[in-house]
Order: sequence, then C-alpha cells, then structure tokens
Amino acid sequence: MSKYVFFAPNPICNRTLNEEESFHACRVLRIRNGDKIGLLDGEGGLYEGTVENTDAKKTSFTNVQLIEKQTEPKYQIHLYVAPTKQMERMEWMVEKCCEFGIHEIIFFTSKNSERKEMKTLRLEKIAIAALKQSKNLYLPKIHSLKPLNDIIKSVKPSFDSQMLFAHISEPPVGTLSKQMRKVKHYHIFIGPEGDFTDQETKAMLDNACIPFSLGKAILRTETAGMASTHAIHLGREED
Amino acid sequence: MSKYVFFAPNPICNRTLNEEESFHACRVLRIRNGDKIGLLDGEGGLYEGTVENTDAKKTSFTNVQLIEKQTEPKYQIHLYVAPTKQMERMEWMVEKCCEFGIHEIIFFTSKNSERKEMKTLRLEKIAIAALKQSKNLYLPKIHSLKPLNDIIKSVKPSFDSQMLFAHISEPPVGTLSKQMRKVKHYHIFIGPEGDFTDQETKAMLDNACIPFSLGKAILRTETAGMASTHAIHLGREED
Repeated sequence: MSKYVFFAPNPICNRTLNEEESFHACRVLRIRNGDKIGLLDGEGGLYEGTVENTDAKKTSFTNVQLIEKQTEPKYQIHLYVAPTKQMERMEWMVEKCCEFGIHEIIFFTSKNSERKEMKTLRLEKIAIAALKQSKNLYLPKIHSLKPLNDIIKSVKPSFDSQMLFAHISEPPVGTLSKQMRKVKHYHIFIGPEGDFTDQETKAMLDNACIPFSLGKAILRTETAGMASTHAIHLGREED
Repeated sequence: MSKYVFFAPNPICNRTLNEEESFHACRVLRIRNGDKIGLLDGEGGLYEGTVENTDAKKTSFTNVQLIEKQTEPKYQIHLYVAPTKQMERMEWMVEKCCEFGIHEIIFFTSKNSERKEMKTLRLEKIAIAALKQSKNLYLPKIHSLKPLNDIIKSVKPSFDSQMLFAHISEPPVGTLSKQMRKVKHYHIFIGPEGDFTDQETKAMLDNACIPFSLGKAILRTETAGMASTHAIHLGREED
C-alpha cells in the first residue's frame, strides 16, 4: 500500500483529486504519473489507485481498487459545542476528536455564547487531515452554528440514543462513564465558558437530556469536548 | 474570594508577585492597593492577600491568609514524552494535561526523537496559567530533555508504582484501563512519531515496564499524552 493517502470522495465514479489534494500531491509530495496512491472516501473505504495525470489543480487517477471497507462503527458520537472566542481552540478540539473518532461536530449558539458566527471550512480541512493521519476511515461532519433551542427540539433520546450535557454543580452529578448506557448514538452537549443558563439547563432536562460531570478539575470548552469524546470511547472499549 | 488569582510560591514568606504576575496584575487586570487577591502556592495551598503596593515589576501584598489546603492527590501521574518537532503541539499537551491534573511531565530523547533540544520556560508558564484556570492547586513540574535510557534505569516499578508505555502491535496489547493497577505513581511513557526502537522496547520490558494500547486509532504524540493522562483519571475516578 502506498504511504501517500488522499481524500477522494467516491473514487470509483470521480477519478480526480480536488484542487487542494492535487496541489499537495504534485507540489509537496511530488508524485508522478504511474505512482500508486491510497484513496480515502471518508465513508469507510480505503482504495488504491494509479496516478494517470499529475496536475496541481486536478490530478487524475485510474485502476481504482478497494483495499479495505471498514464496517460502520457500533456507536456514533455527536458532539455539540458552543465555540470559543479563539478559533484556534476549536481547531485543536476538532483535530483531537477526529483522531479519537467522532461522527459529527455541531456548533451551537446559546445565551452565553462567546461567538455568534463562524466559518467551518478550515475545520473541515483539519478533519480531512486527521482522517489521513489516524487511519479512521469515516470522515466526521462539521456543522456550522445552529441555535441550541432548535437542536434540543430536533434531537430526541430513544432506546438507542442518549442526550448528555456537561454540568457543573455542587455536589457533582455522575461522571460520563456512570451516566452513559450502551446505545448507538451519543449526543453530547458542551456549554460555553459562561455555561448554560438556568433556562437552557431546564429545557435540556425537560427533553430527557442527562447531566454529567467531567470530574473535579474545571476544564476549558475544548478540553471538555475532547475529554467527553475520549471517555465515551473508553466506556465502549470492549466493543 | 477575589476572582483574580496569582501564582505566588510560598506567599507567607515571600510577599511579592514575580515580574510576570506583577505585570499582569497591574497592567492587564489593573488591580489597586487594598484590593483582595487570591494566591496559589502550587503546593496545594490557596491563600488570600491584600495588595500593599502595585508595581508592574514587583507587586507586594500583605495580610496573607490560608483559604484552602488541598490534600495531596491519592495518585500521581508522571508523563514521559519524546517531544514533537512542532513545539506548539507540546504546548497544547502541557495545557491539557495540567487541566486534567498531572504531577510532572518529563521530556526525553530516544533514537527516533524528532527533537534533541528544547526550552521549557514557555511550557512552565503554560502550566501556571492552567493551574489558575483549572482550580487544581498543585503546579505540575516540567522537566527538560533527558535520555530515555537514563530514565529507564532510574525509575523502578514497585508495589506502589507502575511503569507503562504506549505500544502499537498486532494483535494490540491491553488498553491502559486494563493494564493499570491501583497504585500511587503512574509513570507513563509516550514514544516519538517513529516509535520506540526494538532495543528501547526491550529495555523497557526488561525493566518491568508494561505495554498498553490506546485503542484502534493512531494518535499523534501529544494526543497520546493527553489521552493517557485522562484515562488514568477515569480509571481512578472512584477515589
């Protein structure tokens, strides 16, 4: 298998790398016609192809063969986060959550949000880079800002899905490992630095959203996002 | 309690803030004579004092009273890491490990190390900032590069201490939650991107150092450091 892998959604039908990947292939890695390359479709598939025509804007490949098809994960983590003022912190969080493995990250606005608008393009690129690095074969989806209230109304817990939110209280509520059950979907909510308001907390509780503690230390938003994602994986490591 | 806390080692004897903390107090937070401030000694103590004389280089305080003395943690994490080429990655790791709570971080050089020299001053400042943010009252120590071989010879596992190293193999070894016991000291080793050499691995095994897996995904060095620290805390969350 080639040591160079590229992101190529649906490589069977669309046998070209996008502009960014083409540039990286030609100008940074200096691949040549005839070289074998790995192709990740972001949907669980790892393919091998042969470079047909190097072009820094649109490199094409041929002879595409499926090497590995990862089965769908037994559980999916959906992380909902109020973005921090510094986008850098969200970039690190996205990278680390993608390394651990995550289904999607949804940013939300709430009363105490520090950031009311954001662009996700750079975060999507980070997710692709992390996909290549971690050998996870599913590309996490990154969603831009939605109001928390709308999300709470649209997501419903069920026998196969849990909604959980990070909550600081005295005495503390149970930790994530105690509150999580063995379900398919984990919807995890991390509030802004100023926390959820009492009204938001009530709305989540009314919607059967379960509070959890992240331990004694006070974690920053991005740390809470990473720690929750990692804790779910550890809680399910038997699977 | 004042919302402003400063790092002040041994505040009973030395009633001044260092230059960095003084500058922050006077020029950023604009504290004034007579203001109450919080003081962290980094040894488990939280104090309150009254500003006596504001000075951007040497602010003094008086009337120091102990507010809280955190008992020593029931277990200590000693993280040994081969630093990455990009120091930024180590800075994030230090910040996150300090938020989770860690006793010390020791950087080492090994055969495949990407970095053979480093400065720790900036990392120490990050540790102090994380101390203030996280409400952990013990300041983690940051140690500069030492050769891995010397460390392996000087650290010994015992009934109350474990040595563990991240190890990628097929089939994978047990995860950290399976390999850890309930001890006082966890000495965790994270290798460089090129991993430990066979010889280094053998030296660690010969010294009763236990290999552990971090799961299916391939994690970057700094992610492995954070994930190990977090996993130990989750494994001991009952304490």
